[in-house]
Amino acid sequence: MDLDLAAKLQQPAESKVVLCVLDGLGGMARPETERSELEQSDTPNLDRLTETSDVGLTIPVGIGITPGSGPGHLSLFGYDPYRFDIGRGVLEAVGIDFELGPDDVAARGNFCTLDADGNISDRRAGRIASELSAAIVERLRTVELDGAEVCVEPVREHRFVLVLRAPGLGEDVSTTDPQREGVPPLPAEGADPARERTAALVNEFVAKAGELLAEEKAANGLTLRGFATYPALPQIEDVWGLRAAALAVYPMYRGLAKLAGMRALACPGGMEEQLAVARERWDEFDYFFIHYKKTDAAGEDGDFIAKVSALEEFDTHVPGLTDLGADVLMVAGDHSTPALMAAHSWHPVPFLLHSAVARGGSVQHFTERECLGGSLGIFPAVEAMPLAMAHAGRLQKYGA
Amino acid sequence: MDLDLAAKLQQPAESKVVLCVLDGLGGMARPETERSELEQSDTPNLDRLTETSDVGLTIPVGIGITPGSGPGHLSLFGYDPYRFDIGRGVLEAVGIDFELGPDDVAARGNFCTLDADGNISDRRAGRIASELSAAIVERLRTVELDGAEVCVEPVREHRFVLVLRAPGLGEDVSTTDPQREGVPPLPAEGADPARERTAALVNEFVAKAGELLAEEKAANGLTLRGFATYPALPQIEDVWGLRAAALAVYPMYRGLAKLAGMRALACPGGMEEQLAVARERWDEFDYFFIHYKKTDAAGEDGDFIAKVSALEEFDTHVPGLTDLGADVLMVAGDHSTPALMAAHSWHPVPFLLHSAVARGGSVQHFTERECLGGSLGIFPAVEAMPLAMAHAGRLQKYGA
Repeated sequence: MDLDLAAKLQQPAESKVVLCVLDGLGGMARPETERSELEQSDTPNLDRLTETSDVGLTIPVGIGITPGSGPGHLSLFGYDPYRFDIGRGVLEAVGIDFELGPDDVAARGNFCTLDADGNISDRRAGRIASELSAAIVERLRTVELDGAEVCVEPVREHRFVLVLRAPGLGEDVSTTDPQREGVPPLPAEGADPARERTAALVNEFVAKAGELLAEEKAANGLTLRGFATYPALPQIEDVWGLRAAALAVYPMYRGLAKLAGMRALACPGGMEEQLAVARERWDEFDYFFIHYKKTDAAGEDGDFIAKVSALEEFDTHVPGLTDLGADVLMVAGDHSTPALMAAHSWHPVPFLLHSAVARGGSVQHFTERECLGGSLGIFPAVEAMPLAMAHAGRLQKYGA
Repeated sequence: MDLDLAAKLQQPAESKVVLCVLDGLGGMARPETERSELEQSDTPNLDRLTETSDVGLTIPVGIGITPGSGPGHLSLFGYDPYRFDIGRGVLEAVGIDFELGPDDVAARGNFCTLDADGNISDRRAGRIASELSAAIVERLRTVELDGAEVCVEPVREHRFVLVLRAPGLGEDVSTTDPQREGVPPLPAEGADPARERTAALVNEFVAKAGELLAEEKAANGLTLRGFATYPALPQIEDVWGLRAAALAVYPMYRGLAKLAGMRALACPGGMEEQLAVARERWDEFDYFFIHYKKTDAAGEDGDFIAKVSALEEFDTHVPGLTDLGADVLMVAGDHSTPALMAAHSWHPVPFLLHSAVARGGSVQHFTERECLGGSLGIFPAVEAMPLAMAHAGRLQKYGA
């Protein structure tokens, strides 16, 4: 649904909506057993919920498109992932809980090793230790630029985030990373005159940082890419009239939720604590996004058994989830991460919506195959939000 | 399908198409029986038709969107309901069989009660009797405006329709209804200079009407909203090459059909008469829209049993419907109206298409659940028209 139309059709209600995202939920059958992770796992609570829910499969972004975490989640939050494209620099920044503002342009940085001629001899500076990297970052924070504030934050190993802060900076700035060794880093260039100022600031930063790094053995250079300004997403409260809370352990997901206008509540302890915080803060919010990471982590590791365990562990939390008493409860995934592929994939993702006005169907098990026969069919993940809002009584009729 | 493309691809044929719309067809299972209205009803004729048809479920407007009658029907007639948005005033006008023309701007009117200070004390004038309302409307017809013809028509109780007729009137005119009591009606304002003329005419009408209403006890004021000009819909004959007839008892549906370019044939007596008129006029038209209202009325009343009866009554007309001998027969709904919700809803709607070139499937019963397994899957209602045209041999190949 177009967000302008959504803003027109939404109406206030007392109802509560919970979106529980199992990261990388969808999987694939192992040839030897012909069972996927979901089919292999013993999930009695999820199955019971499935029997009384509308179920289907979501297409996270588009047919054949393997989503990153950004588009995978934004879709479920109701944002057209093609239209609202979050730049790499911004994702890196929100991934370390950096509070981005509207005057910021963020970039992903890599330390690299330069040889005597200034050519890159190692694009990742020998993957230097995170501690050393943090110390170098500390030094880079002393760089001062004429007309922009500089923030530098360590990420892990050779990776860091650079944020330049000044009104009117642009994101159409070319990468300084030549993507190969044996050549020097590139100068940043602005795509148009207005962006040249940003590029000039970037080049000034690189020059001054270079002086500070000159004595380093491995990390005596750096490259920057993915320049991205703060994405001014329509805020979930303005569009849908929802006071929304995010319950996520990892900064990346809290950050994505914050971009959408959700309030990120601290709950480092995992599902048990996420559900406890939801219960405590139940009256303050209309919409709760709960993020469960273990399914994706196991899938990315290619560990089929660990993913089955992660699903079974999640299942033990399902009673706590349903006991919240939401009017609309969705169990969804941001994308598939089949353990067999050890990577994100494009495959449609099981989806379940429980509400008093769900039509229901005859699906018994929450699996890729059975969800195919569900009452929701295969549908774009971006439609989950309007669907939930309809079930929550928060959308007026369209047309007389 | 884009209507420009449709106009290019359509080709003449001798074939006949019938679209039979069961208003509010889709339902929802009662928890105690786990059966929906369709599942509960005994519809042997519909079931027999289902076995030899392509079936599926339509999404009337969009996922999670609850359609009004306007968008629900326009979709089935092949119009993108987002693009062709029919304003409230127009729907009110067609709903009383008023013949709108291209120079008209129509508004929904409410009589209201004003207190001594001119503030609204009752937004619905105590829901005055329709007879009294009609008499007051009669008086308002004497209002003369400089440069526009005035038409006023009673609807029911406190409701009426105002139509101003003059070339170049606009519809972006603000409502005069403040949507609350204790404040005076608002002046109408035009969104741009070109619309200000319309707003000025509206305000002049309101002032002159006010004088005529001054002595009324309850209905001594009025508000106007939903200003809408005649929607110049591409005409069904121009787009699809169809001479189309509408067989509907209620003015609203005849009106919608007329907007699309169908000829509305009088048949006040219901299905028996609708089918008789279709038989009589069979040779004059290529496309027949037949509207059955009782399913929606029962659903809106929240009367599950009445909806079951309405479906069973419809079933007795199915032999008459198939005996027409159309090359393509569709049985569809404009939206769901589950008796459990006593309202229109967003849930997908069972759909059936019978033709000699239907691929068919293995669906035995025309129900929400069984249609899920049909050969058409879940698809947007707006695609029913090109699908029917294909089955009718009225669409050329696209591309060489």
